[in-house]
Amino acid sequence: MVDNYTSLNKTVLALIGEKKFKQLQDILTNMLPADIAVLFSELPEQSQPLVFRLLPKDLAADTFVEMDSDLQHLLIQGFSDTELQEVVSELYIDDAAALIEEMPANVVKRILRQADPETRRQINEILKYPEDSAGSIMTTEFVSLRAQMSITDAINRIRRKGFDSETINACYVTDDGRRLIGVVSIRTIILADENDRIEDVMNRYVVSVRTTEDQETVVNIFAKYDLTVLPVVDGEGRLVGIVTVDDALDVLQEETTEDFEKMAAITPTDRPYLKKSVLEIWRSRIPWLLLLMISATFTGMIISHFEDALKTYVLLTAYIPMLMDTGGNSGSQASVTIIRGLSLNELEFRDLFRVVWKEFQVAILAGVTLAVFNFIKLIVVDQVSLLLALVICLTLMLTVFVAKLAGCTLPMLAQKAGFDPAVMASPFITTIVDALSLLIYFRIATVLLGL
Amino acid sequence: MVDNYTSLNKTVLALIGEKKFKQLQDILTNMLPADIAVLFSELPEQSQPLVFRLLPKDLAADTFVEMDSDLQHLLIQGFSDTELQEVVSELYIDDAAALIEEMPANVVKRILRQADPETRRQINEILKYPEDSAGSIMTTEFVSLRAQMSITDAINRIRRKGFDSETINACYVTDDGRRLIGVVSIRTIILADENDRIEDVMNRYVVSVRTTEDQETVVNIFAKYDLTVLPVVDGEGRLVGIVTVDDALDVLQEETTEDFEKMAAITPTDRPYLKKSVLEIWRSRIPWLLLLMISATFTGMIISHFEDALKTYVLLTAYIPMLMDTGGNSGSQASVTIIRGLSLNELEFRDLFRVVWKEFQVAILAGVTLAVFNFIKLIVVDQVSLLLALVICLTLMLTVFVAKLAGCTLPMLAQKAGFDPAVMASPFITTIVDALSLLIYFRIATVLLGL
Repeated sequence: MVDNYTSLNKTVLALIGEKKFKQLQDILTNMLPADIAVLFSELPEQSQPLVFRLLPKDLAADTFVEMDSDLQHLLIQGFSDTELQEVVSELYIDDAAALIEEMPANVVKRILRQADPETRRQINEILKYPEDSAGSIMTTEFVSLRAQMSITDAINRIRRKGFDSETINACYVTDDGRRLIGVVSIRTIILADENDRIEDVMNRYVVSVRTTEDQETVVNIFAKYDLTVLPVVDGEGRLVGIVTVDDALDVLQEETTEDFEKMAAITPTDRPYLKKSVLEIWRSRIPWLLLLMISATFTGMIISHFEDALKTYVLLTAYIPMLMDTGGNSGSQASVTIIRGLSLNELEFRDLFRVVWKEFQVAILAGVTLAVFNFIKLIVVDQVSLLLALVICLTLMLTVFVAKLAGCTLPMLAQKAGFDPAVMASPFITTIVDALSLLIYFRIATVLLGL
Repeated sequence: MVDNYTSLNKTVLALIGEKKFKQLQDILTNMLPADIAVLFSELPEQSQPLVFRLLPKDLAADTFVEMDSDLQHLLIQGFSDTELQEVVSELYIDDAAALIEEMPANVVKRILRQADPETRRQINEILKYPEDSAGSIMTTEFVSLRAQMSITDAINRIRRKGFDSETINACYVTDDGRRLIGVVSIRTIILADENDRIEDVMNRYVVSVRTTEDQETVVNIFAKYDLTVLPVVDGEGRLVGIVTVDDALDVLQEETTEDFEKMAAITPTDRPYLKKSVLEIWRSRIPWLLLLMISATFTGMIISHFEDALKTYVLLTAYIPMLMDTGGNSGSQASVTIIRGLSLNELEFRDLFRVVWKEFQVAILAGVTLAVFNFIKLIVVDQVSLLLALVICLTLMLTVFVAKLAGCTLPMLAQKAGFDPAVMASPFITTIVDALSLLIYFRIATVLLGL
């Protein structure tokens, strides 16, 4: 790991300036692909193709995969056809497919022209699966074995096929119809007796997913079963690919970012922040701001409706923000907890009543605590009338109660209705709770203060 | 994978009732540990020890690891010393250490008494590292090789040592002082020529972490370098353990949950929602609600200060919620984006000015868009005076502007100051923006409406 990119960067720039390419090459070949990619992203554009050519073939391909798509695009534009072919032939099929999804049409054509027919067929195979499905993130390069093979045969086959395969940690066993019937880890093969047959040592209980399965489910399966590889089968149970854990980890990070964005009322996009244009950021945020602004109109209407009450008792206004905020925060706490539980599969719709009952009790405890603190503050610090303090504290309790219940039920109902529960986070809950808290406030004030 | 737990559960209960234990055993041995653990969690308590005893030894240990700590505790209480010893001896060291951290003192004593001295030493080794450090999540069972070994020697050593090791996907090469000098994958060993030496095929550029490194950094390293195993070294560079990717995935899920909780103003706890008691949930939420409630007092004070203005122009009140909510949402969008960028290492403090400049532009675009829409609505639907519409729309623009800037700078400043940026999410941003938006509102109203 390189700790200090800045000083490294300076060294590299100096070597480029002095045309000391041999020395530069020595430094680069001693680095890891992910670190070289970071270094590249900070080099001036005109030096990038030059420095890329200094990398040995396999390191070049590994580094290329780690780069962001803008940089990949730039490099490809400078490649000769031979250079492009060299890089593409070193890529794993899933990485090649991912690259093609990011590139503009003319670059895609060039890449596919440089790939050999078999690679092209495999890339197209992956590209035909829907976005975010298991099929779209799998690779078609894996080692498959037969049940009748001896350990020695299996090792020979692995040696022959293994060079092209992304991982040999798990080898899958298929029958005559290419159907998945077992799995055997390379560890088991190494540790087994040479005369054993694969069927003696293989595990017949293989966790697998269908090509059409959502990638979020794929990640949950990795986490649940502690896997490093997951086989992907088609509708007939035939093995068509594997997903490796590094890709699952990437998917998890991506899906988590999406959840965070949805929960903050942002339309998810898959580019890193600094790469996004101002217009892109604006587009992903403005529809939700508009929608929520319009929803807040109802809250305004409620206040207008009670205009006369407010005129005679203007002090009521001073506590509106506190009531709305506390309600919003109480609701968000519940909704975020439930949304996270749903996404980790810790909660399901059938738990609805247990959840509601739990939140019901928490709401009473929290409501009473907040009301007591607030009552003391109202009487001692603000020195308002006992009646007004009562109105505010009753509203507070009821608001917390309503907010917790809305916060826990809405995400579960959203999921049941087929929506992503993440949209039922703070912004929406807050808007709903705002209106409800005001209705409660004015209702109680009207009765108790006789407005 | 078992799709239908409910029907399986019924079958299992029926078999228990009819005492058909042989049949039950056949079903269980055909299941995966994670699935058996789910099944267990739904069995009646008195059947759990009985069913556990039906599992073959290694499956029992694998299943035990997948259970939650309440169930583990219950089973251990029913174990004889021999049974406990059997389970403990089958556990990997990191799993044994994790178990011990969860159990009450008397159970810990029993477990350690049943472990053999070497296991006990290794468990204590792991337990001495600070919580959430690389040392605390590593396992001390791994295969290490020497540079001078031939491939054949290495394979023999792996066969001898491999049974106890959690993974042999990566074998680490150490020198005479046990210092980490290289890594070689089992794949490379299998594919290498038998006469090669380890030093010919090993990779000298090994990514490793110090025992004291934070577990969040560990996960980021796994993701960055696409690893399945990460070696852990002590202060002198000696190899002391390895972290496997399945544990990294668990840490990632755990850390993500913590981030979600912090961002919703909840003190993180590590138990799943349904396992938490009402009091536990209340304790994790109430301090923040109180703190935020008290902070909202300032907002109330601002309103009280402008009481006279509100009395003469009571319509102003109707737009307070819309202004506060839109400000809060604008600020949350920016803060959540930045918090996520920081946690993915896509952003650093040195990007502060680029971030502020981007948000500055987004704020102007978003502010103008919202103001225009709102202006039309105010004039056409609400039919307020031109001057009031102007006051509201100017406030809206300035609020969005202030909110976006507070939202993007506060998380970065928090991180720079050594705090977790996640606390600078919606709840705090909203509270700050509320007060600022009201100040802007009344200031503009005072000037334009001559209050």
